[in-house]
Amino acid sequence: MKNLNSLYSELTLKTKSKLVLVVLDGVGDIATRSQGYLTPLEAASTPNLDALTQDAAQGRLTPVAPGITPGSGPGHLGLFGYDPLEFEVGRGVIEALGLGVELKAGDVCARANFATLDAKGIVTDRRAGRIPTETCEKLCAKLAAKIKKIGDTQVIIKAGKEHRFVVVFRGKGLEGPLTDADPNREGFAIPTVKPRDAKSAKQKKTAKLVADFYQAALPILAKEKPANGFLMRGIAHQPEIPSFEERYKLKAAALAVYPMYKGLSQLVGMAKIEGPQTIEEQFQRYLAEHDNYDFFFIHYKYTDKAGEDGNFEAKKKAIEDFDAALPILLEKRPDVLAITGDHSTPVAVHGHSWHPQPVLLTSKYSGSDKLDRFTETGANLGSLGLFDAKYLIRLMQANALMFDKFGA
Amino acid sequence: MKNLNSLYSELTLKTKSKLVLVVLDGVGDIATRSQGYLTPLEAASTPNLDALTQDAAQGRLTPVAPGITPGSGPGHLGLFGYDPLEFEVGRGVIEALGLGVELKAGDVCARANFATLDAKGIVTDRRAGRIPTETCEKLCAKLAAKIKKIGDTQVIIKAGKEHRFVVVFRGKGLEGPLTDADPNREGFAIPTVKPRDAKSAKQKKTAKLVADFYQAALPILAKEKPANGFLMRGIAHQPEIPSFEERYKLKAAALAVYPMYKGLSQLVGMAKIEGPQTIEEQFQRYLAEHDNYDFFFIHYKYTDKAGEDGNFEAKKKAIEDFDAALPILLEKRPDVLAITGDHSTPVAVHGHSWHPQPVLLTSKYSGSDKLDRFTETGANLGSLGLFDAKYLIRLMQANALMFDKFGA
Repeated sequence: MKNLNSLYSELTLKTKSKLVLVVLDGVGDIATRSQGYLTPLEAASTPNLDALTQDAAQGRLTPVAPGITPGSGPGHLGLFGYDPLEFEVGRGVIEALGLGVELKAGDVCARANFATLDAKGIVTDRRAGRIPTETCEKLCAKLAAKIKKIGDTQVIIKAGKEHRFVVVFRGKGLEGPLTDADPNREGFAIPTVKPRDAKSAKQKKTAKLVADFYQAALPILAKEKPANGFLMRGIAHQPEIPSFEERYKLKAAALAVYPMYKGLSQLVGMAKIEGPQTIEEQFQRYLAEHDNYDFFFIHYKYTDKAGEDGNFEAKKKAIEDFDAALPILLEKRPDVLAITGDHSTPVAVHGHSWHPQPVLLTSKYSGSDKLDRFTETGANLGSLGLFDAKYLIRLMQANALMFDKFGA
Repeated sequence: MKNLNSLYSELTLKTKSKLVLVVLDGVGDIATRSQGYLTPLEAASTPNLDALTQDAAQGRLTPVAPGITPGSGPGHLGLFGYDPLEFEVGRGVIEALGLGVELKAGDVCARANFATLDAKGIVTDRRAGRIPTETCEKLCAKLAAKIKKIGDTQVIIKAGKEHRFVVVFRGKGLEGPLTDADPNREGFAIPTVKPRDAKSAKQKKTAKLVADFYQAALPILAKEKPANGFLMRGIAHQPEIPSFEERYKLKAAALAVYPMYKGLSQLVGMAKIEGPQTIEEQFQRYLAEHDNYDFFFIHYKYTDKAGEDGNFEAKKKAIEDFDAALPILLEKRPDVLAITGDHSTPVAVHGHSWHPQPVLLTSKYSGSDKLDRFTETGANLGSLGLFDAKYLIRLMQANALMFDKFGA
């Protein structure tokens, strides 16, 4: 049986096409009674998106598999064409990316919580009373000042919000995943981490490193109140992922505002374009960088944020703001433009969901589905049907005429 | 995990149903602005197809995988229910089939070009100035007269158009694929072919055979101008494919006009019905042969031809001609009738494409999708949805009540 990704690679031709993937984070939604059976996309006024649909195909993307709600990691990896079931990115890695740590291949990352321990080392509060962010930053700085290395391994400590922080171990021969240094409930001691794969010498070495880190760090926190301890979870290394350019023969750049999405795009080797803070600025920068790259990933966060807050009006407004900025992008209309989400974040769910997100694809060869608008209901009628998110880039490549014919 | 094809086989019942698969080659298209947002199927007047849709289900077929544009080989193998990623048919084989060579299992085929060599054997023109077809035929006859066998292996040489021809090696213990005897650009000598799999003794033997063929053939051409040499590519053997009858318990016949499609149907063991030259004659012959087979594959070429030419009016006309002939077929309405393409050949693309082709399926049990017409846009709304072409025959079998229930 021929491997499909190998086939795509064999057929790939280098072209001069420009491809743009716009991710409206969490844009997909559901129509419920309390929303008058309208989704935010349906309720929003989107004259520019509407105009695009005339020459576009639509469909819906299954982010991972039916019923699976993805985090931002699997959601974006899928959109970037990497099967999220094949390329797993540990939570520690995602958390580190989210805090803007620039990772290197092989780095082992852990998400950590400050916690409260009693005299016997029993966890009495897994979140140390949700200490303020400033306290967290102070404690992280203290740890970082005293622990720069453990043996030959560099230790990077970075504070997050409230009680959260991340620890990154950078050295040779390290590997995750490890079990958690977290009893997952109060009243128990912090368990010693173990290799997930008992046969892995690298995991064994990394588990020893984490134990040594605890040995060094706990005394430093001993007199702190209430954060005299900490838990570590999702301990994993940055996986080896074939680079985007290698896989697609496309030189890619990311225009993202939030560290998490910059980080995810860097995982697959996209160039990071720094500076833009608004979608208008992102589009302006696309115009400026147009000739420097073949592929642009443009990330827009606010649709997801409003969905997480369960705020229908805010989500509708975020879509309208995006629509208003769209003409800037279209000043240099890409050969292939796809607009979609990394998943749905329905207002009624107040969080990410499994509902397939709508996708719009426009190119000289997309054909027209003769739909008036880009909405979930419209996308149900489109020619692209329902398909796995990991194929979107392949369809974009096809639309850029980047694939030779298969067989005679 | 149960193997799906094994399951289908276990469940298959022999019935008296007649199943007909009509392939309107490349019928799928896209609606573009310059075509007034109509596809040829939409623009054509098709009263007979329209009447069929009342009692039909519709959907769209992914010929191979998202974004992959198939050649006729993978396109038809998929329609015949053989995964094109599992059953690869080399270009040499396809070319030989296209020229009407009747292949046997194990035959190794190569597509060949006459070329011009300088005194040192350097390729100076990979197409020998595109010599006229008559010259090609003359040279092939000359080679064929002098080289009938190499060792125990029979050699079959057949001329194609202009500089093109095919060479078939028929003997024991032969196998492809081999690397090409083609530098792929001018200014280089013809490389010696090598096994693709260095461990295959059969490929090694076949590579030696090709070298011996060159040794025998080049002196025969030495004084020709400009075709004093030749290149060989896509050297592969006819793969072993489980026969259609074995796989589906259906005795199948092919009603195709062009050699390529006769050949492809023979690859899976369909009977070849010779004679008919027009779609009317093909349908007439179906009526005459109705009782002799369970399954008919009827191939109609002209939709593809018009698409390749980028000729909207010709494609529309080809569809209308087909529609006008359809009542002949319906004189003995099959129990299950599927009408589709092997891929799309959009007018705007001037060639095969990746766009899923529409499919119409009508039987006593197809149900009605209550669509007025058979078009790409209509098919988007159908109950069959978007699915892989390799499952179409299974759906046809189900509609013929050829499958027992799975489990109690």
